[in-house]
Amino acid sequence: MSHNTFGHLFRVTTFGESHGPAIGCVIDGCPPMIPLDAAEIQAELDRRKPGQSRFTTQRREPDEVKILSGVFADERTGRQVTTGTPIALLIENVDQRSKDYSEIKDRYRPGHADFTYDVKYGIRDYRGGGRSSARETAARVAAGAVARKILPGVTIRGALVQMGPHPINRSRWDWDEVQRNPFFSPDAEAAAFYEDYLDRLRKEGSSVGAVIEIVAEGVPPGLGAPIYGKLDAELAAALMSINAVKGVEIGDGFAAAALRGEENADEMRPGNAGMPTFLSNHAGGVLGGISTGQPLVCRFAVKPTSSILTPRASVTRFGEEVDVSTRGRHDPCVGIRAVPVGEAMVACVLADQYLRHRAQVGQSVPWPFGELSPAQS
Amino acid sequence: MSHNTFGHLFRVTTFGESHGPAIGCVIDGCPPMIPLDAAEIQAELDRRKPGQSRFTTQRREPDEVKILSGVFADERTGRQVTTGTPIALLIENVDQRSKDYSEIKDRYRPGHADFTYDVKYGIRDYRGGGRSSARETAARVAAGAVARKILPGVTIRGALVQMGPHPINRSRWDWDEVQRNPFFSPDAEAAAFYEDYLDRLRKEGSSVGAVIEIVAEGVPPGLGAPIYGKLDAELAAALMSINAVKGVEIGDGFAAAALRGEENADEMRPGNAGMPTFLSNHAGGVLGGISTGQPLVCRFAVKPTSSILTPRASVTRFGEEVDVSTRGRHDPCVGIRAVPVGEAMVACVLADQYLRHRAQVGQSVPWPFGELSPAQS
Amino acid sequence: MSHNTFGHLFRVTTFGESHGPAIGCVIDGCPPMIPLDAAEIQAELDRRKPGQSRFTTQRREPDEVKILSGVFADERTGRQVTTGTPIALLIENVDQRSKDYSEIKDRYRPGHADFTYDVKYGIRDYRGGGRSSARETAARVAAGAVARKILPGVTIRGALVQMGPHPINRSRWDWDEVQRNPFFSPDAEAAAFYEDYLDRLRKEGSSVGAVIEIVAEGVPPGLGAPIYGKLDAELAAALMSINAVKGVEIGDGFAAAALRGEENADEMRPGNAGMPTFLSNHAGGVLGGISTGQPLVCRFAVKPTSSILTPRASVTRFGEEVDVSTRGRHDPCVGIRAVPVGEAMVACVLADQYLRHRAQVGQSVPWPFGELSPAQS
Amino acid sequence: MSHNTFGHLFRVTTFGESHGPAIGCVIDGCPPMIPLDAAEIQAELDRRKPGQSRFTTQRREPDEVKILSGVFADERTGRQVTTGTPIALLIENVDQRSKDYSEIKDRYRPGHADFTYDVKYGIRDYRGGGRSSARETAARVAAGAVARKILPGVTIRGALVQMGPHPINRSRWDWDEVQRNPFFSPDAEAAAFYEDYLDRLRKEGSSVGAVIEIVAEGVPPGLGAPIYGKLDAELAAALMSINAVKGVEIGDGFAAAALRGEENADEMRPGNAGMPTFLSNHAGGVLGGISTGQPLVCRFAVKPTSSILTPRASVTRFGEEVDVSTRGRHDPCVGIRAVPVGEAMVACVLADQYLRHRAQVGQSVPWPFGELSPAQS
Repeated sequence: MSHNTFGHLFRVTTFGESHGPAIGCVIDGCPPMIPLDAAEIQAELDRRKPGQSRFTTQRREPDEVKILSGVFADERTGRQVTTGTPIALLIENVDQRSKDYSEIKDRYRPGHADFTYDVKYGIRDYRGGGRSSARETAARVAAGAVARKILPGVTIRGALVQMGPHPINRSRWDWDEVQRNPFFSPDAEAAAFYEDYLDRLRKEGSSVGAVIEIVAEGVPPGLGAPIYGKLDAELAAALMSINAVKGVEIGDGFAAAALRGEENADEMRPGNAGMPTFLSNHAGGVLGGISTGQPLVCRFAVKPTSSILTPRASVTRFGEEVDVSTRGRHDPCVGIRAVPVGEAMVACVLADQYLRHRAQVGQSVPWPFGELSPAQS
Repeated sequence: MSHNTFGHLFRVTTFGESHGPAIGCVIDGCPPMIPLDAAEIQAELDRRKPGQSRFTTQRREPDEVKILSGVFADERTGRQVTTGTPIALLIENVDQRSKDYSEIKDRYRPGHADFTYDVKYGIRDYRGGGRSSARETAARVAAGAVARKILPGVTIRGALVQMGPHPINRSRWDWDEVQRNPFFSPDAEAAAFYEDYLDRLRKEGSSVGAVIEIVAEGVPPGLGAPIYGKLDAELAAALMSINAVKGVEIGDGFAAAALRGEENADEMRPGNAGMPTFLSNHAGGVLGGISTGQPLVCRFAVKPTSSILTPRASVTRFGEEVDVSTRGRHDPCVGIRAVPVGEAMVACVLADQYLRHRAQVGQSVPWPFGELSPAQS
Repeated sequence: MSHNTFGHLFRVTTFGESHGPAIGCVIDGCPPMIPLDAAEIQAELDRRKPGQSRFTTQRREPDEVKILSGVFADERTGRQVTTGTPIALLIENVDQRSKDYSEIKDRYRPGHADFTYDVKYGIRDYRGGGRSSARETAARVAAGAVARKILPGVTIRGALVQMGPHPINRSRWDWDEVQRNPFFSPDAEAAAFYEDYLDRLRKEGSSVGAVIEIVAEGVPPGLGAPIYGKLDAELAAALMSINAVKGVEIGDGFAAAALRGEENADEMRPGNAGMPTFLSNHAGGVLGGISTGQPLVCRFAVKPTSSILTPRASVTRFGEEVDVSTRGRHDPCVGIRAVPVGEAMVACVLADQYLRHRAQVGQSVPWPFGELSPAQS
Repeated sequence: MSHNTFGHLFRVTTFGESHGPAIGCVIDGCPPMIPLDAAEIQAELDRRKPGQSRFTTQRREPDEVKILSGVFADERTGRQVTTGTPIALLIENVDQRSKDYSEIKDRYRPGHADFTYDVKYGIRDYRGGGRSSARETAARVAAGAVARKILPGVTIRGALVQMGPHPINRSRWDWDEVQRNPFFSPDAEAAAFYEDYLDRLRKEGSSVGAVIEIVAEGVPPGLGAPIYGKLDAELAAALMSINAVKGVEIGDGFAAAALRGEENADEMRPGNAGMPTFLSNHAGGVLGGISTGQPLVCRFAVKPTSSILTPRASVTRFGEEVDVSTRGRHDPCVGIRAVPVGEAMVACVLADQYLRHRAQVGQSVPWPFGELSPAQS
């Protein structure tokens, strides 16, 4: 069962509400002897942190992470390493502005989870969205930072490839550019356009959706657990579980439906070390639920932020008519900050599948993926 | 862990290879006292069965299901009912033509799982695709037939909404039409077009992809288990786990990314029994991972069948160059028979989430979904 | 998978080391709308707290619990209630005396987990036993306090029934007496004897084992999930997972092996509301893995504390001979403080099985156990 | 969740009722490339098979096992090997005497699960005990035969060490003797005594309990997953889940409670390859939930068979008084056939823990347990 736990062998259990004392997670199943300190996790958190540009929420959260357990100094190397016991990570909530919630506590904001939490649980922590707040994704990013450490040789990067109806131009794709603009856009020209575009939307109190692409390179062939723990199925769940996501694609995704078999088949030619070289990657690095060794390519669609200034028709929890608009701090395009979250989810899925492969297949099948060892990580 | 098990409380474990003695599944966690006989399961299997038109594979499998356990005659009603113990379902493989596999056993068919199974496990049952064959989905359909029985008042229907690059015309949508053509198309005109289109492709030995839409009506609000067991996340995993699926959408899906917040928000007005009436359904019936009570709408993209006549470049498992083409029985559009499979997966997810809701919330929150009882089902 | 998670639907994940910053747990799956405040959890923790008499370790830990998430004020009643989201509980470690660990860090104390943690993980937090310290059981007791809240009408009590080779006299059993002596003994005379006995052992720097009995009254018939989630099987795992436990019994336990069928069968006579009345309880309240409605009776054996003054032969982690003795704070009979821990584990198992029953059977079978509702709890 | 599934990574799901068409299991997670044929499984099943002496039930079941999936011929060696996909095993029920069940169907036999299944599920397959029949354990033994194959170098043997109140004499322990008498007694003199003793009980229509001991040699140090997946906790659940078991012990078990710390601590001296040599084994091969490398020793108590000729007071399912006695085929000491079942459960736990260890720790910590490889197994 997995209400608030993600993963099977690399298990992440998150907790916490937006305006409670703290959020955090417990990571269970992490291998021992992996160098890990808080600064590495903090570096990933800082990429997701709010308030870094005028295009994200102005909530001021330092998102400072503390490691409460599961690490110890290895006196042989002087480094802090994992011990194989659960790693608890804590992020205190700091910017919980005390404010008047009377407007929000009884009203169901359209597009939000207000109504569904209330109808399911009979109560909800309405302050800042409570458990359904995107703030929970900070815990995912922290866990993802740990997951990356057990994937030697794998590079997981994400980029925003569409904002509203405006896609980037893929011929201008530059991974370095992703670090240089506040949108994680790999296309500098698109980034310049998004700046004006989002400023305009922000001033109107409106919002817009986005499409994010995550690419994992260096994934060895053989990861994935058919039939129901397929690599692509778990990626789909992982990405769809991110707040506001409405669609997921692997490789060509929906475009594959329009292709003929001849177009879609990724041809192969003999490659290195007995492994085939693929001549294309329509499959996005997955066949039969198992990685092929090609780059893993997945995309997800984020709906526009539901918090907008324009009043929308709604009801109160007493069944009365009401119009709702949202003032105050919010992300005009919540898809932007979803980029590091998407990376983190892919990292968690790959770490989990790596441990699953190691459990079932181990060394009994020669495998072109060096075993994780302290020296490597 | 879930290599071959799907679901948490309504758990389905499938087994079997395409050309082994049998395929089947064990359903664990099914509530007791639900009337169930083999004929009900058979009716669903017959919808997926191969060889029913010239547009699907000509393999002749009766797909006759036997119930091996978990049911017993209720002497009070004379009906056979579930007992709460595991329900084992067996489907023997009948049409395993003995043939020469020398062409296939050492060659990696592009787009197939041949290479990935071999690289992962060091061996594969190459006859008819073995475990990675779409034949495994018969077990899913059988399980889905049982899942439907524990969802009183819920109607789950699927339709093919695009074949190759050709979508249906949604203004002509007619659920009754879905039963009348061999494509599960809700648009009679599109069905007529598909007939010619697919005949042409079939004669060329080619293949094409498809998009399938599943709609579940009567789903009560409150189903779903945030954060990682969200209803939409589990649907995404369920649908992506079907053979050849490359994309999944909930509600507006990828189109939502292009919308502004004002367009995407589903407004509400007071409805019956204190429940809101939604004025639109961009969300596809899910907010915050929990059902809203609106129809649940999801879509998935199926890639073109990888078995085609046109030779494609590939390698053998010894690393030698080879060209591969596939003769013999195959589905030119494997998406067609994916319709009942998609319905079954949605049914399994909903049954599981229903039991999860019953576990955590039970009667402690008044809920507009009558408790399952023998009388109702 | 469950390295550090206990339970299926009422899931408790614990974390933390004895001398790290904090220990704690995350409870996932708790039903919503259950009144819960920290004071209720604290009351249980105080029963297990060290340093309350001269017969337990003199470590001074206030064991103050904080609720980090999962509760919210119900404005209808003014009470704080659960919200259905994960409940994170934190207990900071306060009395981590900074001391010289050079004696312990390289030596394997006989009977301790020093060697096995080292051989498994390659590293261990040696301060106070780290993760293998009995300190972890504080998190279990906290979780058990929450579990009790979802079991209306069930009373779970424990007692020490044997210390070293000295059993209590069952004819003097008095539940009230359990609260009055520092040993949780239900027999006042035995308690008086234990006082002298343990003082003597303590002064010799020795230790002794114990047998604990837990009785749960008010458990309705029907709880348990055959075949592998049987109520007694889960109790056995729960109790055996407590530090230093070497044996578990249900009902007559090992004594049942010596009985004849006529003696062991618990006869029945018609009782109230169509339920049978049992004339004896050799079964300890479980038949076929399902509760009978009789009191649930289980016992567990705790080995003597391994920390003793008498030097014992051992090795260092470099393979050198060494003699080890343990100075400083320790429990001469660790079984004493295991009483509230055993109660907590039984509460967690029952809460989990209750939710499992509610999931699979719900209201479809009339059941003599009132549904949990806010009013009841 | 685990109603009918046992294990986490080596997962066994059993199904079937005593008098239904078949019983069986699905094993998921078995590593690939392990030589396996039906004869090996059959050999284990034959040890548990009823009707082999006058001391077990006279039901005549050939218990012939069929492998339905998960194996394939490895053309390199000509041997049938596992493929990494689920292994389904089927055992058809043959000796289902058609008989009159009117005596049993409405009466609750004392000590049986009749009442508890009925009160929980509202219905039960009463023929031969249905799902609660010891017949289910045949599926466990079959799964155990597969589990043994992935534990190179580990020897798992069981013996009956007490029948009724009569223990064996441990000084006469001879593992070879276990094969030579129908009681699995390691003490030839005790076996001779049991023959007369059980003949007398059988003629009286009575029954008696037993204690079984399982010893696993060659278990490497490091197996076990603290805190809640401890090796001893999982063994306790595994053994307690066997029909009629009421107690479980590891190492000294309940006797440990009577010891002082000095007596109980297993001292160590430097051994081979840097591993310590233990000077005693009170711990039964487990410290802190992790194996020490010493022999794993566990015991379980089996209550007397509940089916006896002497009438016992009971009720019908309509609440009427009735006296019940059981005629016909039954085991006078069901503990005898529990010996191979206990071995199988220990094998399954060890296989599961081995895969868990391989997942979390892999090669990152040097481990004195050769990796499983096709050559070894």
